[in-house]
Amino acid sequence: MLCAVAEEMELEDLDKLRLAIDARDASALLAVAGEIHYADLAHAYENFDDEDRDFLLQTIGPELATDLIGELPWTLIEDALSHFKPAQLRIILGNLSDDDRVDIFQIVSPENQRRFFSLLGPADEQLTRNLLKYEEDTAGGRMTTAIGRITADMTVKQAITVLRRHQDSAETLSRIFVVDEEGRLVGKVRLRDLAFHPWATPIHDIMEDADERVLATIDQEAAARMLSKYDLIVLPVVDEFDHLLGVITYDDAMEILQEESTEDIEKLAAIGGEQSELSYLNTSAQNHFRRRVIWLVALAFVSIFSGYVMYRFSAVLNQAYVLSLFLPMVVAAGGNSGGQAATMVIRAMSLGEVSAGTALRIAWKEMHTGLLLGATLGVAMGAFIYFLLPLMQVQHDITYTRLAATVSGALLIQVFSSTLLGALLPLGARAIRLDPAVVSSPSLASTVDVTGMLIYFTAARLILSL
Amino acid sequence: MLCAVAEEMELEDLDKLRLAIDARDASALLAVAGEIHYADLAHAYENFDDEDRDFLLQTIGPELATDLIGELPWTLIEDALSHFKPAQLRIILGNLSDDDRVDIFQIVSPENQRRFFSLLGPADEQLTRNLLKYEEDTAGGRMTTAIGRITADMTVKQAITVLRRHQDSAETLSRIFVVDEEGRLVGKVRLRDLAFHPWATPIHDIMEDADERVLATIDQEAAARMLSKYDLIVLPVVDEFDHLLGVITYDDAMEILQEESTEDIEKLAAIGGEQSELSYLNTSAQNHFRRRVIWLVALAFVSIFSGYVMYRFSAVLNQAYVLSLFLPMVVAAGGNSGGQAATMVIRAMSLGEVSAGTALRIAWKEMHTGLLLGATLGVAMGAFIYFLLPLMQVQHDITYTRLAATVSGALLIQVFSSTLLGALLPLGARAIRLDPAVVSSPSLASTVDVTGMLIYFTAARLILSL
Repeated sequence: MLCAVAEEMELEDLDKLRLAIDARDASALLAVAGEIHYADLAHAYENFDDEDRDFLLQTIGPELATDLIGELPWTLIEDALSHFKPAQLRIILGNLSDDDRVDIFQIVSPENQRRFFSLLGPADEQLTRNLLKYEEDTAGGRMTTAIGRITADMTVKQAITVLRRHQDSAETLSRIFVVDEEGRLVGKVRLRDLAFHPWATPIHDIMEDADERVLATIDQEAAARMLSKYDLIVLPVVDEFDHLLGVITYDDAMEILQEESTEDIEKLAAIGGEQSELSYLNTSAQNHFRRRVIWLVALAFVSIFSGYVMYRFSAVLNQAYVLSLFLPMVVAAGGNSGGQAATMVIRAMSLGEVSAGTALRIAWKEMHTGLLLGATLGVAMGAFIYFLLPLMQVQHDITYTRLAATVSGALLIQVFSSTLLGALLPLGARAIRLDPAVVSSPSLASTVDVTGMLIYFTAARLILSL
Repeated sequence: MLCAVAEEMELEDLDKLRLAIDARDASALLAVAGEIHYADLAHAYENFDDEDRDFLLQTIGPELATDLIGELPWTLIEDALSHFKPAQLRIILGNLSDDDRVDIFQIVSPENQRRFFSLLGPADEQLTRNLLKYEEDTAGGRMTTAIGRITADMTVKQAITVLRRHQDSAETLSRIFVVDEEGRLVGKVRLRDLAFHPWATPIHDIMEDADERVLATIDQEAAARMLSKYDLIVLPVVDEFDHLLGVITYDDAMEILQEESTEDIEKLAAIGGEQSELSYLNTSAQNHFRRRVIWLVALAFVSIFSGYVMYRFSAVLNQAYVLSLFLPMVVAAGGNSGGQAATMVIRAMSLGEVSAGTALRIAWKEMHTGLLLGATLGVAMGAFIYFLLPLMQVQHDITYTRLAATVSGALLIQVFSSTLLGALLPLGARAIRLDPAVVSSPSLASTVDVTGMLIYFTAARLILSL
């Protein structure tokens, strides 16, 4: 039972699973494994040790193991397969859907790839070799070839006969595609149209246009965005001659979009490297460390430039040490406003809202926004210094008017320039084909720290000299 | 034509649309509007002025307008509906899918809601009133009630007859649900099973369990995660007595998950308020300003605490001004490492990877990671100061050994404590039922700025006094 209405039952099942494995009780394990969805089984598998995994895999056998392996994180799959004998592997590799199978062939060692090829039937081998030609992150690398194909000159009855023959291998029959004699995509029909029309109806009477399609070589994210935009269940993948190669399904699209969001979020926080396929808790501290340390050290060295500006302007600070009260604020305001602008622009890019010719419009919008933000912040802080600071008995070596003028002026310039920079960095990164999220976030933070120091001290020196 | 293989054709269509509207050429507009997918039409609509919109809506008529309105951002819908006369509105409101219709009723003014109710047929009115009972962000508020329902005692032929009668109103027939005489969910069949089985087959022979289901009152995100986890096209929504109320579909799930990712990303960058339904470029600068200004001003005032620490420790800085060279770095390292930790934990929460009992394991993992990060950064910066800084001819008023000890020690403590704090803040926020992303990001940034200053100056004072 897997209902969110009864989550306690799910937990109970997981407890039973744990008990059956601890007791090495094969029949109890089989009983409970049949009750648990394989997505949950895969999640539980992550937490087991090697002996537990071996017992589980051997007990459930190659059939159920195929479903389980399809849901495992990549990092665990090669090891999971090593628990099986060649005869069992033959069954598993044969049972896998073609897109899952090619994913596995892409990640295993060359030695294992050769060994796995030798276990495939000739048709599966040919199919897998064909699919391996596409890059992992393209529509072709993500598609499944198991689809319903019929031709326009068939009748509904003939179509149903053809589809019934392939019904187990066709991953989704919710859209059935019509191809011409050369295999070129010419239309689609819905299964319901087959089910609800008289058997003698010719397919070309009920087929619809299949306008939405993508080339096998396009980026998987573009394909996923298209599925999402047009609310499609499947999106046909074609070659440059419009031959139907396969489809991308809605569940792949969901996965691709989620991975991409996670990637953006992590890059914005200066977390590098490949996303761990394991969940947060199952990723080791060493691995978390590795993904964070490089940016952290790099950013630390860049911060010395900020320190250098502060060091060079020691005279200004010595002249009016009360300026230190607002130094961190001016610097931080740049980081905050620049980060907001960069985040908005990067997310808009990810959502496909920003096209090539819109850089100027974005810059204009952010200049406007940055001016409003800088002016508001400058006025608020100036008023605070002028009206409230005198009540707080701070030792001050310059007049409140001069202090307010310094802070407000520096804030206006810092927030305005940081907002603009925050918008321009991602646009610039994309223009030279770098990843906007990776490039912008750290370079922005360190740049506006330095500019903040410079702007503040320059403003202070100017005001002090008046 | 809507293929990513031929984006230039899509652009051409959009150009034609623009031309037809500018020329107020109704027949050209109708021709091109028929070619463009309504999702693209809705996107173009955003950029039109009020008169253009009026011409477009009046020309395409209520039928096509229904599709268009279903794709518009919420903020534009009420205005779009105001362009139609009551007779046209009656058609549009009747044509809308039940879930889109109830969404619209939820956002319009009470006056318009009353007016729209008066235009609905009795069945649609009753349905809409029922659906309005569910909160907008629950499974019930998001579901559609247009589904195929059959009973287990029907034959395949009877089922097909029933379903054919409802085929236009049933949003998706890819899953058909089997209910008992009380309307309780007892199973599901696939349309292909109906299409491929002899007409005399009883439904109970081919139906499968429908284990996955959610209560109408659960959060829409939980429902969307479930669809995604189990790769479902539709997820049944039930009441507490297991009565089948409707379904959530995969395209709603995709939309919900995307909205949620955007929300997380924005909150992490201290951007507040409701997400704009308009795309980035169509949101006004004033609106961008409003969503950013509150946090920006709040954070600025909090930053004064950092300034106050710096102000109070003026004696330390006066004693060895070279310390200023590394002050911004120690402070920033806390922000960076804390931000990384918070981001990882918040994303893991959003992905449903973190359950209630795991707070201690997360804290332990981040302590471990933070120690590694702090030690690495401390050693790297200590080595830099000890071996490379002497070559750079910086005026220094304390020995390089003392400076290295201060900076390394402060970095270790700052990075370790910030990492731990970055992990604990989101966990704490969730424990007291606040939004982890909203609370953690700004409070973390301002807190570690202050602690960084405190740690650095305290370390310096200690080392200087030795």
